[in-house]
Amino acid sequence: MDQTALFTLTYGVFILGAENNGAKNACIINTCTQLTAEPARVSVTVLKSNLTHYMVDASKKFTVSVLGKHASLDTIAHFGFQSGRSVDKFQDFEYKVDTLGTPVIEKDSIATFSCKVVEQIDLGSHTLFIGEVIDATKLINGEPMTYAYYRDLKAGKVQPVSLGGSVKPTKEQVQYECSVCHYIYDGEVPFEELPDTYLCPICGKPKSVFYEA
Amino acid sequence: MDQTALFTLTYGVFILGAENNGAKNACIINTCTQLTAEPARVSVTVLKSNLTHYMVDASKKFTVSVLGKHASLDTIAHFGFQSGRSVDKFQDFEYKVDTLGTPVIEKDSIATFSCKVVEQIDLGSHTLFIGEVIDATKLINGEPMTYAYYRDLKAGKVQPVSLGGSVKPTKEQVQYECSVCHYIYDGEVPFEELPDTYLCPICGKPKSVFYEA
Repeated sequence: MDQTALFTLTYGVFILGAENNGAKNACIINTCTQLTAEPARVSVTVLKSNLTHYMVDASKKFTVSVLGKHASLDTIAHFGFQSGRSVDKFQDFEYKVDTLGTPVIEKDSIATFSCKVVEQIDLGSHTLFIGEVIDATKLINGEPMTYAYYRDLKAGKVQPVSLGGSVKPTKEQVQYECSVCHYIYDGEVPFEELPDTYLCPICGKPKSVFYEA
Repeated sequence: MDQTALFTLTYGVFILGAENNGAKNACIINTCTQLTAEPARVSVTVLKSNLTHYMVDASKKFTVSVLGKHASLDTIAHFGFQSGRSVDKFQDFEYKVDTLGTPVIEKDSIATFSCKVVEQIDLGSHTLFIGEVIDATKLINGEPMTYAYYRDLKAGKVQPVSLGGSVKPTKEQVQYECSVCHYIYDGEVPFEELPDTYLCPICGKPKSVFYEA
């Protein structure tokens, strides 16, 4: 079986928002899919070890902010490459709250949804949450960011598109991606020089599961 | 609630293959998502009224052929715009079978997977099938076709890309898309001239649910 065949599947890039007992958090996910139109239902797949997972599981609600192609890498890093257990991601980051008190991020997004969890499936490492869409807002007519575009942008293979914001282009370099959670190594030390004891900061898997993306 | 906000979600374009008691069929789907890496599991969402749905439900197995950006509109029309109840889609169309006897389509694809259904969720109009990937093959290094690219290609907004095959460009025109199942009207009669009794050939919803895509 060739695991890389699975990397041909197409994904978007989204901010998953959660609120539980007054605490707010959000993380980056790449799987949000509309399941049915009537009623409008979407699914999201979330790594169980994420703080956001805990909060969605406890509160049975979530929001999705659909990042546009113009989204800044800084925004993705802000929500994707640090944990809400150690930082308050909403300190100094503009957001709104929906009718259920869950945060949505309009900056860099083209649409947002508010959902109530109606069903969830334990997938082992992840949970698939099925949400009924109780509110949906189209913000602007921009193109959605795909996960493939994000990778190309991060590798400097494409020029950033501007939509009011500005993104600094990065220089082309080999990317190392975690084959389990798709985290792209982002550290200062060249990946090759990391010790063999290096672990993926997102899913905790060893250096050996990374591949050249 | 603005339903068009949900159209910002990013999808691919896939051929879902099925086999049951010697009968084979396949249809086009736009939702195939990897759920977990260990074990490798994917989900597909399938309209219940499709013959392919019946066969996957009965046989508890399916294949996914991931269409590349170079895929011909004819291939998509062949599997997407006619029913296996009235035609044998594999008559005169080249295919292979996997180890479980399920057809995979390598023409126009960049990867194929074989799956066994391990869980399924009734979503009303659709079923979400969760499949354990028992085989996966990367065929070529082409880019996957996204649903947005397919729509642009069909509308003549982008030039077809060639990869051995040839695709005739279509001239630009307004597209009418079913908001329920995302079928794009493809008939000879201009959409505006269709009678109000027109029904979507895929999901059976009335003309009024179509919108200008």
